[in-house]
Amino acid sequence: MICIRSHRIIVFLLFGIIIFSGCQQTEFESDTQPFCLAIHGGAGTILKKTMTPEIEKEYRDKLEESLQAGFNILKDGGNSLDAVQTAINILEDSPLFNAGKGAVFTNSGTNELDASIMDGNTLNAGAVAGIKKIQNPINLARLVMEKSPHLMMVGEGAEIFAQENGVEFVTPDYFYTERRWQQLQKRLQEEEENNKSLNNTAHQKYEPDFTDSKFGTVGCVSLDQNGDLAAGTSTGGMTNKRFGRVGDSPIIGAGTYANNQTCAVSATGEGEYFIRSLVTHDISALMAYKNMSLHEAANHVIMEKLTKLGGSGGIIAIDKNGNIEMPFNTAGMYRGYIDKDGKMVISIFKN
Amino acid sequence: MICIRSHRIIVFLLFGIIIFSGCQQTEFESDTQPFCLAIHGGAGTILKKTMTPEIEKEYRDKLEESLQAGFNILKDGGNSLDAVQTAINILEDSPLFNAGKGAVFTNSGTNELDASIMDGNTLNAGAVAGIKKIQNPINLARLVMEKSPHLMMVGEGAEIFAQENGVEFVTPDYFYTERRWQQLQKRLQEEEENNKSLNNTAHQKYEPDFTDSKFGTVGCVSLDQNGDLAAGTSTGGMTNKRFGRVGDSPIIGAGTYANNQTCAVSATGEGEYFIRSLVTHDISALMAYKNMSLHEAANHVIMEKLTKLGGSGGIIAIDKNGNIEMPFNTAGMYRGYIDKDGKMVISIFKN
Repeated sequence: MICIRSHRIIVFLLFGIIIFSGCQQTEFESDTQPFCLAIHGGAGTILKKTMTPEIEKEYRDKLEESLQAGFNILKDGGNSLDAVQTAINILEDSPLFNAGKGAVFTNSGTNELDASIMDGNTLNAGAVAGIKKIQNPINLARLVMEKSPHLMMVGEGAEIFAQENGVEFVTPDYFYTERRWQQLQKRLQEEEENNKSLNNTAHQKYEPDFTDSKFGTVGCVSLDQNGDLAAGTSTGGMTNKRFGRVGDSPIIGAGTYANNQTCAVSATGEGEYFIRSLVTHDISALMAYKNMSLHEAANHVIMEKLTKLGGSGGIIAIDKNGNIEMPFNTAGMYRGYIDKDGKMVISIFKN
Repeated sequence: MICIRSHRIIVFLLFGIIIFSGCQQTEFESDTQPFCLAIHGGAGTILKKTMTPEIEKEYRDKLEESLQAGFNILKDGGNSLDAVQTAINILEDSPLFNAGKGAVFTNSGTNELDASIMDGNTLNAGAVAGIKKIQNPINLARLVMEKSPHLMMVGEGAEIFAQENGVEFVTPDYFYTERRWQQLQKRLQEEEENNKSLNNTAHQKYEPDFTDSKFGTVGCVSLDQNGDLAAGTSTGGMTNKRFGRVGDSPIIGAGTYANNQTCAVSATGEGEYFIRSLVTHDISALMAYKNMSLHEAANHVIMEKLTKLGGSGGIIAIDKNGNIEMPFNTAGMYRGYIDKDGKMVISIFKN
């Protein structure tokens, strides 16, 4: 009799616990939707020994400013697209990163910028490439997404669209920074010395720029209080680039991808490999179709698939539950996040 | 005793059958690698009632010529990239399709062409967009893949690269066809009548061209005797397009994708939706990660996912075993294939 009674009590208690934990779970899901944000400022041969403490501090301060500005939007109930745009604007306006103000020079001494943005809720996206007169390419990418029936616009056409939509132009000298100009001069000199000029050599391959500016890109991924994901990427391209080369930054599925069902991803690295591998969409596909976690999918794509193909770079990614991943196979990647507990982490080198 | 003996005989026979069928399988796989090819000439509102028998015959003849030329290369032991390029060249050189010679006019009366090609064996790819002086954009896309370290080049830069590699230019009048010019005039007139000009209307959306030329694209997918897959796509874009709009045709993973592990796919349709959905890479991902057959993956992506998102168009695809799929959600799609048994099928309308 005692046995049966205690048995009943245990069943009762277990039942209560299950119901209670169920309520807790529901409450947690509806009331405490996590929100968080991650950024990158490019990956490449960034080594501690070649960086002074002063320069490192400059980078860290700017990454912190960007993270904080984006996170404040999320904290105030703002949406992921605004957070992504705001965080990227701060990196674009800094001469430290290869995007916006700090864009590298092309072979002909111009600056040609690319950017893309994607809304994980609607799967809408916008992209621009080869633009020369816009201070914040990520803003133009968003304008393309929201105010045109198109997804991608390039060159002068994109700027005519910008003008018709009231976007102010900057003059070419806005993008002049001594550091980037010297990078181009150095590259041109090396090219001359190596007699690698393509101008009179049909059918000859030339080496792209393999300095630290090669992987110069900025990006942001965000999860907001509505559970909406967004991703954005902006770049100044490659030092000494020719031929209207377009990398992965403005290519949806390569440089940028967001889908509320899986994750938001922004990439930085050797664009050609990222396009061939559809890196950002592939991470999403592995989660959706193979039930991989963000950790598994992001690491599989960067550390195994991309690396095996011979590509270098990294990504930042957030999933719908607020997990953050930032794998890269280079020496360093400017990166940072504020997680769902509000904790900020900023890193540059490999751990 | 008899029982044991017959039991032994049965086991022996079964063993023999298993070994024999194993050999057969191996023999089949090594000696009869299937080869086949499929093409498309665009999808859209192609209706039997609006087409005369004479025009239908013109389309069918040209599709047959393209298929036969591509297939001959495969039959002679040539590779998929050559087959894709040759089949597409024939469609590009015809005024019937919106690619190459038959390219539609932009809003400013120019012709701006896009193309991409991908090698399923190496995952190498090449793409060009916004080019004006090249007779066969698919050839330039292949040149970018094979003779440059880049994957995608746009505008004048792509043409400088072409010139440096000995590609001959055509003059703009090469692309003049009365039919396409009249399509532009009609579109401009409609726009004027509807007072939809964007010139003085900032922030106003405008309707893209929804005539039959909207989905104008040509493409080819191929499987060769080495088991190598390739895909290519070429287009003249949208009638009356503005703003340097780039559609899905030159975007790897959207308009074109090939991977020996899964399939080769070329798309035609509303480019913006195909980019957002990463249509061609998604089909490959569903096969690789969800073990779907080509039939299941292609139909799921076009007839369910793309349709649900509101996008129109279709794809042609071949898998590594020589299965062919050509789903589309429009009224018609110019399409054809020669299958692994050498049987040719050409279709235009819905069955």
